[in-house]
Amino acid sequence: MSSSPRCTAIVAGLPAAIPFVGPETLERKRGAPFRVRVGANESAFGCSPKAAQAMTTAMAHIAWYNDPEAFEARDAIARRHGVALEEVLLGAGIDEMLGNVVRMLVEPGTAVVTSRGAYPTFNYHVAGFGGLLEAVPYRDDAIDLEALLDGVRRTNASLVYLANPDNPMGTWHTADNVRRFLDALPASTVLVLDEAYVEFAPDDATWPMATHDPRLIRMRTFSKAYGMAGARVGYAIAPRETITNLGKIRNHFGVNRLAQAGALASLGDDAFLAWVVDEVATGRDEYHALAARLGLPSVPSATNFVCLDVGSGDRARALLAALHDEGVFVRMPGVEPLDRCIRVTVGTALEREAFALTFEQVLHGLQGG
Amino acid sequence: MSSSPRCTAIVAGLPAAIPFVGPETLERKRGAPFRVRVGANESAFGCSPKAAQAMTTAMAHIAWYNDPEAFEARDAIARRHGVALEEVLLGAGIDEMLGNVVRMLVEPGTAVVTSRGAYPTFNYHVAGFGGLLEAVPYRDDAIDLEALLDGVRRTNASLVYLANPDNPMGTWHTADNVRRFLDALPASTVLVLDEAYVEFAPDDATWPMATHDPRLIRMRTFSKAYGMAGARVGYAIAPRETITNLGKIRNHFGVNRLAQAGALASLGDDAFLAWVVDEVATGRDEYHALAARLGLPSVPSATNFVCLDVGSGDRARALLAALHDEGVFVRMPGVEPLDRCIRVTVGTALEREAFALTFEQVLHGLQGG
Repeated sequence: MSSSPRCTAIVAGLPAAIPFVGPETLERKRGAPFRVRVGANESAFGCSPKAAQAMTTAMAHIAWYNDPEAFEARDAIARRHGVALEEVLLGAGIDEMLGNVVRMLVEPGTAVVTSRGAYPTFNYHVAGFGGLLEAVPYRDDAIDLEALLDGVRRTNASLVYLANPDNPMGTWHTADNVRRFLDALPASTVLVLDEAYVEFAPDDATWPMATHDPRLIRMRTFSKAYGMAGARVGYAIAPRETITNLGKIRNHFGVNRLAQAGALASLGDDAFLAWVVDEVATGRDEYHALAARLGLPSVPSATNFVCLDVGSGDRARALLAALHDEGVFVRMPGVEPLDRCIRVTVGTALEREAFALTFEQVLHGLQGG
Repeated sequence: MSSSPRCTAIVAGLPAAIPFVGPETLERKRGAPFRVRVGANESAFGCSPKAAQAMTTAMAHIAWYNDPEAFEARDAIARRHGVALEEVLLGAGIDEMLGNVVRMLVEPGTAVVTSRGAYPTFNYHVAGFGGLLEAVPYRDDAIDLEALLDGVRRTNASLVYLANPDNPMGTWHTADNVRRFLDALPASTVLVLDEAYVEFAPDDATWPMATHDPRLIRMRTFSKAYGMAGARVGYAIAPRETITNLGKIRNHFGVNRLAQAGALASLGDDAFLAWVVDEVATGRDEYHALAARLGLPSVPSATNFVCLDVGSGDRARALLAALHDEGVFVRMPGVEPLDRCIRVTVGTALEREAFALTFEQVLHGLQGG
């Protein structure tokens, strides 16, 4: 008897690889927790006390299913961005929504375009639905909008992925440039614009959400500046028909009850958000100053992390391993030429200090060895 | 310009209907909250205090992503059931896992078998991946295992759905009968056995989880007896290769951090679980006694709800509407002949009392009207 009855051809052909190995897995392998967790671009500043209070209060009814319409959070999001309720989708993080966008648009053989070294989970979803991924190179450590557009035209792509600001590099484009890119797209191509880090970016990196372009799906998250990565909640804004189509395939009870309450409360605490953004800006400056002091270039960032350029992929991998050995969790871009960098998340002041000390030590250790 | 660029044929052809309208949606429509929420088979007895404590503690790190391997909860589940870690999948509720099982096995045109009136969310997923659903009738308010098997053979189905105990009727089969059914399945057919309500069932309704049959995927949840429906967490146990294949398409960061902590802690509080099961048995007895007093048949139940047989679909729909008007949220099966029943969840003693009073009133009102 076969041990895997009639698995679909797509699933049978997929690798068992996963997009990200979690720090907990690394901790289990090394047999000890990390001292400093600055690798997953999580917020070192927690969530809003109002969100924490709302989640604690919501715990009283954890035995009740969550509202499958997520009405209250969606209503607040719609009001905040001046769009209709029907233009807002709440999802269990951008990851889940990216999966559903891919499922909505990608059939086996559908062309999809992204940048080489951009978000692996998007690529995972494209492979998972049998799409053909075209990955164009970065240019000067930033997304190359012209190359993306060329890729779309060359492959007749249904879907193109753009994170602005970008992860893993931290660079960004102005809203004017992104809108020019959008305007140049064919009518049959959808741009999924991942704005996970947008709260950390300069004002000119984004534009009002009420765009109403049928080619555009914008995604934001409570995982980064709002400090709720463990809650799994984000949102997409797109024209009604797009949200309706996503509603045909979404997991209706997919957003945890506490996460919905926390997201709603977070939207009511702009002072907290502003404080986090300020702290992150301070931390970024420190990392840039650290790099300068160590004679390393660093990549300009509009996010909550900074890429430190250590010169080569081999050197970066050696440093990453040494940092992990010393209990410091960081990550690095996966492909050339981006992989000459170590990507470090802005931690608390103490975490930044600990990172700086350890980084300098392992850097000198490597140079001496 | 088209307002929906190149949506896949499957998604374009799906209805915008949703499997379940949540009570919150009904409350918004009626402009007032329900007094008594006994419609979604949620636990009236909350979650274990240990789980609540664990979730509160986990809130301190809500800014951190959840462990994508869900190691601790899966390890505890594996130990509890005497299976290997690699045979356990943790998911954001059975709904999410059902979607992935369908995605793994169903291509456009693949035959799938269920029972007519069984879990609508399963049907939603089958439609969502282009499967052809064959729904066989119930027999005496129970799943008809022979009809299911005939359906599988007739359609050459890749997948068959069975909830034991059953929702929406509450009836159940012995483990011996379910295993005979499994043994009779073709090698190319997978049985997804939904045991969401199994904790409430007699001991002979289930059997040890270490089955190792490549045709079997068993699913359990923390949403019912464990009282954590709002947290979205459940698990599947199946042979390693099946879990590996599901791992190729799952949402790796999909299970909320608090939910993972709560699930783990719940598994360490068997005394709480036993108390809930006892309370639910008491409540079921009360509902059966209420039905008898009102001269109505009631359907035997191995779950946390009871179906009260009010004679016809029209009468049940009228009673349901009247109950909703009076602030009592219940549900009812969607199709004949099951739809002659009102399905009422075991509430707290006060909720049961309030339900009984209101139900008797609307029943008399309907008879007088």
